[in-house]
Amino acid sequence: MRGDLSRRAAEERDAADVLAGLRDRFVITDPELVYLDGNSLGRLPAATPDALARLAWQDWGTELVRSWSTWIDWGRRLGDRLAAHVLGARPGEVVVSDSTSVNLYKLAAAALDANPGRHTILVDAEEFPTDRYLLQGLAAQRGLTVRTIASHLDEGLDPDDVRRALDDQVALVVLSAVSYRSGTLLDLAAVNAAAREVGAYVLWDLSHAAGSVPVDLTASGADLAVGCTYKYLNGGPGAPAFLYVREELQARLRQPIWGWFGQRDQFRMGAEYDPAPDIDRFLVGTPPILSLAALDPALDVFAEAGIDQVRAKGVGLGELMVELADAWLTPLGFTLASPRDPQRRGSHICLAHPDALRISQALISEAKVVGDFRVPDRLRLGPAPLYTRYVDVWDGMERLRDLVTRGGHEHLPVEPPRVT
Amino acid sequence: MRGDLSRRAAEERDAADVLAGLRDRFVITDPELVYLDGNSLGRLPAATPDALARLAWQDWGTELVRSWSTWIDWGRRLGDRLAAHVLGARPGEVVVSDSTSVNLYKLAAAALDANPGRHTILVDAEEFPTDRYLLQGLAAQRGLTVRTIASHLDEGLDPDDVRRALDDQVALVVLSAVSYRSGTLLDLAAVNAAAREVGAYVLWDLSHAAGSVPVDLTASGADLAVGCTYKYLNGGPGAPAFLYVREELQARLRQPIWGWFGQRDQFRMGAEYDPAPDIDRFLVGTPPILSLAALDPALDVFAEAGIDQVRAKGVGLGELMVELADAWLTPLGFTLASPRDPQRRGSHICLAHPDALRISQALISEAKVVGDFRVPDRLRLGPAPLYTRYVDVWDGMERLRDLVTRGGHEHLPVEPPRVT
Repeated sequence: MRGDLSRRAAEERDAADVLAGLRDRFVITDPELVYLDGNSLGRLPAATPDALARLAWQDWGTELVRSWSTWIDWGRRLGDRLAAHVLGARPGEVVVSDSTSVNLYKLAAAALDANPGRHTILVDAEEFPTDRYLLQGLAAQRGLTVRTIASHLDEGLDPDDVRRALDDQVALVVLSAVSYRSGTLLDLAAVNAAAREVGAYVLWDLSHAAGSVPVDLTASGADLAVGCTYKYLNGGPGAPAFLYVREELQARLRQPIWGWFGQRDQFRMGAEYDPAPDIDRFLVGTPPILSLAALDPALDVFAEAGIDQVRAKGVGLGELMVELADAWLTPLGFTLASPRDPQRRGSHICLAHPDALRISQALISEAKVVGDFRVPDRLRLGPAPLYTRYVDVWDGMERLRDLVTRGGHEHLPVEPPRVT
Repeated sequence: MRGDLSRRAAEERDAADVLAGLRDRFVITDPELVYLDGNSLGRLPAATPDALARLAWQDWGTELVRSWSTWIDWGRRLGDRLAAHVLGARPGEVVVSDSTSVNLYKLAAAALDANPGRHTILVDAEEFPTDRYLLQGLAAQRGLTVRTIASHLDEGLDPDDVRRALDDQVALVVLSAVSYRSGTLLDLAAVNAAAREVGAYVLWDLSHAAGSVPVDLTASGADLAVGCTYKYLNGGPGAPAFLYVREELQARLRQPIWGWFGQRDQFRMGAEYDPAPDIDRFLVGTPPILSLAALDPALDVFAEAGIDQVRAKGVGLGELMVELADAWLTPLGFTLASPRDPQRRGSHICLAHPDALRISQALISEAKVVGDFRVPDRLRLGPAPLYTRYVDVWDGMERLRDLVTRGGHEHLPVEPPRVT
């Protein structure tokens, strides 16, 4: 099959795809739209609107406050589902709460407190903005230094880069398992081992990894992780994030935001904060139940698919995209801005082009192909194995080639809009 | 009318109630249920399920990631609606984000940073648990002292209590405008003035005030406030919270959780955190859009009712409840555990009884009257003016009298359940 870049060959791969049937589990109202931004906002699972309606009419509308006897455990329950189906963690190690940013703040602060006397936080210079900003804030507050590892914009980091940057002054390393722009996939086990050797904690941002690659937190020896649920996990816009703390560490770590959901015997309402003995100590306030309710139908599809099948198809989709880019887009001034080796990538692919901003916008408005733009000059395209077909990749790339060939983007303003 | 404790008299008050028509704007699936816990979780607005379905099918399901061009401003937009209809604040002073707990942490930390050299945080000893715990955490982190004001369990604090506890060592005062247990309403303007005299910031927790009493943040000279939207505001379980920062203070205050939603020119993704110049600097991460979507229909009802009408009816409902308690419940061992003067109370009423826990539970399971229990021995009952009728109060109190008279609670276990 490889090397045959016809649409027919893509159709044949779809016909042989073991996950093909799961596309029907998502709402697809516009068959013309090629959606390659599942790495930013996943599609709506078909079962989600009913789940929301049930939650509203039954749990909230009819049972009212009495539903809190079940809602109170949803953060834990959903965390366990994520642990089992997506993250390779054990029960009681994952909980859903707050945003990724707030969770990263909580766990980074906890790790710094547990590693006193060290003055350095290590982060990829190209790490997702919120991660870098949060660490700058923590460093400013505590008189620490953020040391950045200069990474290649397209190839990202490898474990040796991290190893070279580690020393016994490093308290905490924050890295994305899959880089938000280039898609570079890091070897978690190698980085965890290197950090453990010098006594540093590693806090993984799994936002672009969860649901696209098997993460295997337990097997890789991970200590700490956070991530969002609205990308490959299809939990809905701004769906609550998860956090992971290895069981053996939970009793030793304390996070800084001492809210009542982190309190042992919450409804005794005692005078002094006394953190829960387990993962609950990393909770803070009342969780948004409507948004949590959308996670169950989303995780059902994952539980059925299996993360290894998802990964295998993700590699296939990515390979087709890279082959088409090589054949069709290189002559138009595009270069691959992701690792070429599929084992070093997550599910999304980045392409560099001097006019990437306008191309990205015209691609949406005129060619009905949705990807996104990332500074400085990157077009990011994220097929999502649960609902993206090989023909979607083929159609998207063909429309992209046609758009740029005819200069269909050149009438657009060069200024970026508010959201890219 | 006053003094006539017949059900007929309650019916007449309903017939004359200018807000009576708004009850139809809420889902009431069980006409037998007397719901007196709107102070914990407000009822489902009838327009909310459709709003959620529209959000799911159209904004998420069809428009997908393109909807972020509007979603990105929802925290601000909803904040402005709250400011106009509920909080008496100006545009650009309120934003919806995170949980009340996280917001309280952010603003408390910001105020402490802006008031260096002072070592005391002042809080009501009977303040809601999450507020006390959060302040204990901030104090532990910064080497500060939390000084509690001993307040009366039933009468709460008055401005003189606060004034006596203030001195030039106090950096920050955290108080509830309406106390979560007794319902005591504090005079915001008097407290704000007293604190300003000694140079302390006041951070108001409006969770039990927003939507039950006119808060008038601008007129009262308030600097900082947070509060939830799932009680009287009917935003749904765990609906995202709001925060308020007086415009003149915004540029001076910085919160500690430096996330990308607080960044100026967020999508430039610059290397250094550079906080937005306005209220956006108090944002952190991606907000849960499904939960935000439920706030619009909830606020529509408030905009129509007007907070002054809501307050007037809240006083009426509370007065009836107290009169009935005096007449019917005092002989059964209940005592009023809220201020007797209606001008010193919010919308909910607390009653003390040695067997309050079991009474609260039997009231729900056997008499279909939903209130809640609060330690140590309090039955809390919260009529909500938008949908609670005078006859609901009457029926609820009558069923309570009957239940306790026949000892209908005495077979229950004395141990509290997980959630009370």
